[in-house]
Amino acid sequence: MSIVILRQDDKIDLWKHALRSAAPDIPVYSGDEDHPKDRIDMALVWKHRPGSLSEYPNLKCIASSGAGVDFIFEDASAPTHLPITRVVNPMLASDMSEHVIALIFAYLKNLNHYKIDQQHKIWKPLNYKRIKDFTVGILGLGALGAVLANDLVRVGFKVQGWSRSKKTMKNIKTFFGNEDLADFLATTGILVCLLPLTQATAGILNSELFQKLPKGAYLINVARGGHLVNRDLLEALKNEHLSGAALDVFHEEPLPVAHPFWEHPKIHMSPHCASVSDTDSVVPQIVENHQRLLAGKPLNNLVHIERGY
Amino acid sequence: MSIVILRQDDKIDLWKHALRSAAPDIPVYSGDEDHPKDRIDMALVWKHRPGSLSEYPNLKCIASSGAGVDFIFEDASAPTHLPITRVVNPMLASDMSEHVIALIFAYLKNLNHYKIDQQHKIWKPLNYKRIKDFTVGILGLGALGAVLANDLVRVGFKVQGWSRSKKTMKNIKTFFGNEDLADFLATTGILVCLLPLTQATAGILNSELFQKLPKGAYLINVARGGHLVNRDLLEALKNEHLSGAALDVFHEEPLPVAHPFWEHPKIHMSPHCASVSDTDSVVPQIVENHQRLLAGKPLNNLVHIERGY
Repeated sequence: MSIVILRQDDKIDLWKHALRSAAPDIPVYSGDEDHPKDRIDMALVWKHRPGSLSEYPNLKCIASSGAGVDFIFEDASAPTHLPITRVVNPMLASDMSEHVIALIFAYLKNLNHYKIDQQHKIWKPLNYKRIKDFTVGILGLGALGAVLANDLVRVGFKVQGWSRSKKTMKNIKTFFGNEDLADFLATTGILVCLLPLTQATAGILNSELFQKLPKGAYLINVARGGHLVNRDLLEALKNEHLSGAALDVFHEEPLPVAHPFWEHPKIHMSPHCASVSDTDSVVPQIVENHQRLLAGKPLNNLVHIERGY
Repeated sequence: MSIVILRQDDKIDLWKHALRSAAPDIPVYSGDEDHPKDRIDMALVWKHRPGSLSEYPNLKCIASSGAGVDFIFEDASAPTHLPITRVVNPMLASDMSEHVIALIFAYLKNLNHYKIDQQHKIWKPLNYKRIKDFTVGILGLGALGAVLANDLVRVGFKVQGWSRSKKTMKNIKTFFGNEDLADFLATTGILVCLLPLTQATAGILNSELFQKLPKGAYLINVARGGHLVNRDLLEALKNEHLSGAALDVFHEEPLPVAHPFWEHPKIHMSPHCASVSDTDSVVPQIVENHQRLLAGKPLNNLVHIERGY
């Protein structure tokens, strides 16, 4: 009864060490080392090599080490009959919220312009914007979106949110379903995408949606690159329907150096760093779910496979 | 009984128009045009040409069109017997507060680094910081500092403040006087200067003060350039006692292009734009004080000349 860690970045040893420290009794292996594949019952995965999950005959659970699971569904060879879990933790949500608040304030106060002006030794005060001038609209009121919405209200923003199914939140105007989307967008000055990436949401940030936003709206995508139709964003910036965008996520990461986003004066990039699952907060959830797996108890934070998140 | 507007930027017409719209009965002149100097009873000033205030024999009040009045005291030829008023308004305070919050979040989330990395097409996630990791210490708990302190508490920061005279604020640890300064600094991770510029505070941001901050502290100066000893900041950044600084104000503005701050990788500049007095919020205060002047009533927002603010 062992755990294998499958990922392609340089963090395998970090996670192995953290799991072993937290639960010395559980054998933990890296997918890169020799290990008894028939004894693995849980795979802790993050953007694993497609195909690698099918090598474990006795696998009982696939655990994402982040909030997202889209990369599991994108691996056509991943076992489809197994339970999939994801990380739901307050730190991920508050980290994401703080990052989005930083992006919103940088937009209000022209900080990206000033950083570029400084490099060119240009002294040019610009008109700033104020909290009271904006309604922030959040696409997705799940574990991350709901925390952001409440934080933004506390900071003083008018906030509204849209979700697939009906939600009620204090001090936040909520919209739901396709029929409400246009009304939600029409009154949103800063749009934040925090949707899960599913078949229903892939490419949702497209020309049709942008046209429903008021002229001059600002886009923040911190969910997944797959939500955005890149050429539609470039078009909306070119015709000035959108005033700018802050992007933390991209179709391909790292973003290829030839991509036009790098040099676009109205696009402000960060390298998929808004909210990073750290071992301290995630490992206890993994260990508990492994114990539940052994004891035959229901797993926490199960993904609804038919919804895709 | 007329008002003259004395300033050296390109905003004289803007202010003249705004004053005339708000109070059509009061003659308003630009200092640059022909005007009856003996009929002027109020000068509305912002970084006026030194010496120009002494040309008005019947002047009864000098009104700063901003929160600061240091430039009046720096003009040795300004009449010293006249009442001086300044602007105290909620918009100035909330604008300042929002700008400082933007600077703090940009620091936590490495936004300045990412903006520079984007220009060099560098994809390099950095460790971010969190609200809970910091105590923000505010030097100066006046009209601006107190609003910022309360806003930061609402955002979730631990906040403490230092002021010349004793102040008590809910949820904010306060320190006062020279004897408390070292204790205040020792527990401050992000230091925000919002002091008035007076003889007592000029050069207060110096090596001696920096040494009392914990290693790695971050400095934000949004008050006046004269608070900072430039070479001491460069030294503290070089020896890594301070981790960085965000500066909105400078000894000379615009900052000369040869100045080392422009190219310093740990200094993030904005062009004295944190909080700009706009005519909409300031003009009603000026008009009311002019009416009070005519009626012989006490003026609002009088500067304590012996304190310098």
